[in-house]
Amino acid sequence: MAYSILKEINSPKDLRKLDQKQLPELAAELREFIIDVISSREGHLGASLGVVELTLAIHYVFNTPHDKLIWDVGHQAYGHKIITGRRDTFNTIREFGGISGFPKRSESDYDAFGTGHSSTSISAALGMAIAAKLNGDENRQHIAVIGDASIAAGMAFEGLNHAGVTDANLLVILNDNAIGIDPSVGALKEYLTAVKEGKNPRQNNMIKSLNFDYSGPIDGHDIPALIKELDRLKKIKGPRFLHIITTKGKGMQLAEADQVKYHAPGKFNKETGEIIAVSDAHLPPKFQDVFGKTLLDLAIKNPKIIGITPAMPTGSSMKYMIEALPERAFDVGIAEQHAVTLAAGMATDGFVVFCNIYSTFLQRAYDQLIHDVALQNLPVLFCLDRAGLVGQDGATHHGVFDIAYLRCIPNMMVYAPRDENQLRNMMFTAQLGLEQPIAIRYPRGRGISVDWEKTYEKVTIGKAEMLREGSEIAILSCGFIGNEVIKALDGMSDASRYSHYDFPFIKPLDESLLKQIFTKYKTLITVEEGTVKGGFGSSIAEFAVSNGFFKTIRILGIPDDFMPQGTPLELLKICKIDAENLRLIFGEY
Amino acid sequence: MAYSILKEINSPKDLRKLDQKQLPELAAELREFIIDVISSREGHLGASLGVVELTLAIHYVFNTPHDKLIWDVGHQAYGHKIITGRRDTFNTIREFGGISGFPKRSESDYDAFGTGHSSTSISAALGMAIAAKLNGDENRQHIAVIGDASIAAGMAFEGLNHAGVTDANLLVILNDNAIGIDPSVGALKEYLTAVKEGKNPRQNNMIKSLNFDYSGPIDGHDIPALIKELDRLKKIKGPRFLHIITTKGKGMQLAEADQVKYHAPGKFNKETGEIIAVSDAHLPPKFQDVFGKTLLDLAIKNPKIIGITPAMPTGSSMKYMIEALPERAFDVGIAEQHAVTLAAGMATDGFVVFCNIYSTFLQRAYDQLIHDVALQNLPVLFCLDRAGLVGQDGATHHGVFDIAYLRCIPNMMVYAPRDENQLRNMMFTAQLGLEQPIAIRYPRGRGISVDWEKTYEKVTIGKAEMLREGSEIAILSCGFIGNEVIKALDGMSDASRYSHYDFPFIKPLDESLLKQIFTKYKTLITVEEGTVKGGFGSSIAEFAVSNGFFKTIRILGIPDDFMPQGTPLELLKICKIDAENLRLIFGEY
Repeated sequence: MAYSILKEINSPKDLRKLDQKQLPELAAELREFIIDVISSREGHLGASLGVVELTLAIHYVFNTPHDKLIWDVGHQAYGHKIITGRRDTFNTIREFGGISGFPKRSESDYDAFGTGHSSTSISAALGMAIAAKLNGDENRQHIAVIGDASIAAGMAFEGLNHAGVTDANLLVILNDNAIGIDPSVGALKEYLTAVKEGKNPRQNNMIKSLNFDYSGPIDGHDIPALIKELDRLKKIKGPRFLHIITTKGKGMQLAEADQVKYHAPGKFNKETGEIIAVSDAHLPPKFQDVFGKTLLDLAIKNPKIIGITPAMPTGSSMKYMIEALPERAFDVGIAEQHAVTLAAGMATDGFVVFCNIYSTFLQRAYDQLIHDVALQNLPVLFCLDRAGLVGQDGATHHGVFDIAYLRCIPNMMVYAPRDENQLRNMMFTAQLGLEQPIAIRYPRGRGISVDWEKTYEKVTIGKAEMLREGSEIAILSCGFIGNEVIKALDGMSDASRYSHYDFPFIKPLDESLLKQIFTKYKTLITVEEGTVKGGFGSSIAEFAVSNGFFKTIRILGIPDDFMPQGTPLELLKICKIDAENLRLIFGEY
Repeated sequence: MAYSILKEINSPKDLRKLDQKQLPELAAELREFIIDVISSREGHLGASLGVVELTLAIHYVFNTPHDKLIWDVGHQAYGHKIITGRRDTFNTIREFGGISGFPKRSESDYDAFGTGHSSTSISAALGMAIAAKLNGDENRQHIAVIGDASIAAGMAFEGLNHAGVTDANLLVILNDNAIGIDPSVGALKEYLTAVKEGKNPRQNNMIKSLNFDYSGPIDGHDIPALIKELDRLKKIKGPRFLHIITTKGKGMQLAEADQVKYHAPGKFNKETGEIIAVSDAHLPPKFQDVFGKTLLDLAIKNPKIIGITPAMPTGSSMKYMIEALPERAFDVGIAEQHAVTLAAGMATDGFVVFCNIYSTFLQRAYDQLIHDVALQNLPVLFCLDRAGLVGQDGATHHGVFDIAYLRCIPNMMVYAPRDENQLRNMMFTAQLGLEQPIAIRYPRGRGISVDWEKTYEKVTIGKAEMLREGSEIAILSCGFIGNEVIKALDGMSDASRYSHYDFPFIKPLDESLLKQIFTKYKTLITVEEGTVKGGFGSSIAEFAVSNGFFKTIRILGIPDDFMPQGTPLELLKICKIDAENLRLIFGEY
């Protein structure tokens, strides 16, 4: 395709010069452009395809970037990026140093607010709308585009509840496609479906009840209808709400047909849409699948096991249990706070609840973990997927704070498996019955062995182990990053100087082994895929100074900065915790 | 009063033996009993007075403790405690070792779930209801009693949204009194008011929209009506919602008339209800008032200042600014997540936003602080009231994790003023313009000087200072607890051995001063009112081991346990960080 219109669109100013009749053609080009680029990369696809018309209509009607446009869970913003000056760099999306997969303030004036986690857009837009009023800019418009999965999260309700009693210049556009990453769930979703199907003659009373000027639902792929309605809404004051219906993956047959798979399909044939099969039978399993398959396996044998995921049945692979044992596995939608306290409630009745939440999203339920789980010492089993550096999703999604924010909480155990078997064995052990809660953090991506479905072995709580014995220097690692240590040592000529200890238990620490280590070696080096401030290495430092062990300790991990996007290896290199850098650092001692 | 009926009620079983006609008299006795005890203590009053009839009706109709009753924000549960076996120990409420001011699982089988923070009850009750079904107990009932202020929080919406698509045996009772600690706010509250006033002929469609069987509103002080309706609802399956109208402080004229003051009135005359005036002109100010008055003072001069509080205008003393400058000060209700991202949105427009959240409640907005504020490096100014041990509210409310959970976040500054002037000066400095966010943590209670309104002085970012010079041992404290260190040293005969350094900046640390300290002294002792795991002392340990300073460091602070309720001094003693214990510990070196 020649992109004859799109190639002239260097900013929304160019867009606004077009005749409205040209927009459908531009939409086709924009959609094609997204498909063209993303087919050879591994980005989000379906969400952005679904809002191509909306993207054009908003920028056509509103005076961006003066008017503020916020895309909730920003992975729907690819079209927005392309028409706001980033067409020619779009092919670097999600690369190290390239365009972010999410809106990012430092990248463009058109990205009014960074969004990666969901359901923040209404609060942020309302803040800007109130600010505009205080600045005397009565006419500035503020638009939050939010999906039906995201608006079900509590935070979005809080934003609506506040906005409804203001006269803020706020337009909330509900992009209703009945799906997040997985299909939307919950009572609100059922209600919205009824509204769409005309079963609710009074339209959306729920939103009207919150004092919003409600309009819709309208077809979100009908550009003239969108422009007409946005033009009308632009002239109205106060909080407004437009309900539009879209199809995720719109315009690409296979993506429309399998919206879960085409949320982020990996590489695919841009002509046919067919996903380019990657033969992975010879590869180690993804950690998420080790979790998902082990959970199902254990749950079949232990009727007390319950699974809970907030909107990540596919991402966490809890889908296996949801499919096989639907009465005991729950997708509660984007509702991390609810998920954790629901788990606590179930645990009071003696159930063994595996609550799977990505490390970065557990930040959303921190108080519930403290107040409802840990304080009551309920043995909820948190499985934190995507712990550590997540790669191309970047700064919003790295799960690098969990060690620090969990180990300060009384009663919590914190465990980081180095491989698939440690994960399986810890899950096995935990479901036999713990007397306190535990968080098991494991990374995004694949493990280390194709031969991972071994017989379960019971884990000894609090036990660390020596993987390799050396003479002078002790390296202490926790979790998957230990494999980089192994690789580093394997390549050293004087490897016999180094011992390697695996500390899967960050809490409780194996203090008796630690005492031996401090007695034996002159220098310790700790390695973790978590923040150096307050993390595993910090806990070793606390132990050392409190027990009078005067040894040099080098703490390696994520430095005190937000890490960017990139391949896992690129990011490990920035942190100097890849095998090559580790080897250099070890060599300094 | 003789409490002729109440004295026979040792458990709800006794209650159920009564003739229904006796209940109004019992209600009068129960109310009187609460007033009698609380008048001489400093507990919560209004909330429990408002639910006396509801408490009796629920326990009369339902088979507690087999049926599960959860009181949201448990300070409404005093009547519940008295009739569930705790009448004779009720006069120890909120004392060290006494009855908790909140439901507590370890205290009674009737306390089905611990509740101190708001809006958790629906999720917990739903978890239990699902568990009961899985256990084959189809008939067990699960009741969540939640106020209109609490149901507006996002977490409650998440619970409703999930419950509505289940067939769980769940009854949500909305105790609508139009007030939390301060009057309720938000669009939902306005909607509920319209429902109550009959302005919405279709009753509560919002709740019906979420698939709940809605009934009400009914008079929550009419025992026969309550019993009749609860009896009816008990026989219905699936999620049900009963809307009742109550008056906070019911039955005590002054408490009804000034519901904010009588939320937790302190000591009062039990006959007249008049609060026993405590002359405090000679006392140092409360930190909250230093915050509130300083904020107003600064905001009058700096038109860019905005104040945000999630439902704590009185508790945070932001009420001064809300009253004087209502267009720039916002009570957003119980909505910490929204509060933080709203602040971030305003900060993008150059406003200087003071977001005041109790330390324990910032746990509710941890992700928003990371993802929306720190990652975008927006200079939001968090003021964390009630940081440290809060006293008689106990474990649910201590603000002891903040240092650990904040200092691992890049871009965050963390500041702990030792006195009123440091708080004022840091607020003054921050509003002049910072390039990054800051959290200023200060304690519940009073400062140290009646003469606190001094001229502002600009604070040097990252600077610590020596308060007292000694020869051998360096004591490093951060924040208000430094005053205990001062007291401890003042009482020591060999005080000249000890230096005392005040580190108000926990992040960034004054590393150049630290180097001098490590060079000069043989031993360091750190003191903080925060967790020893991951806190200020931990950061000093990190610094020491990473820089090769081989000195003994004793880390004093909150041990790795949830701290109970008690007076501030009792709790400091448990942690061994009161002046007396500090003196003993210092003496060991």
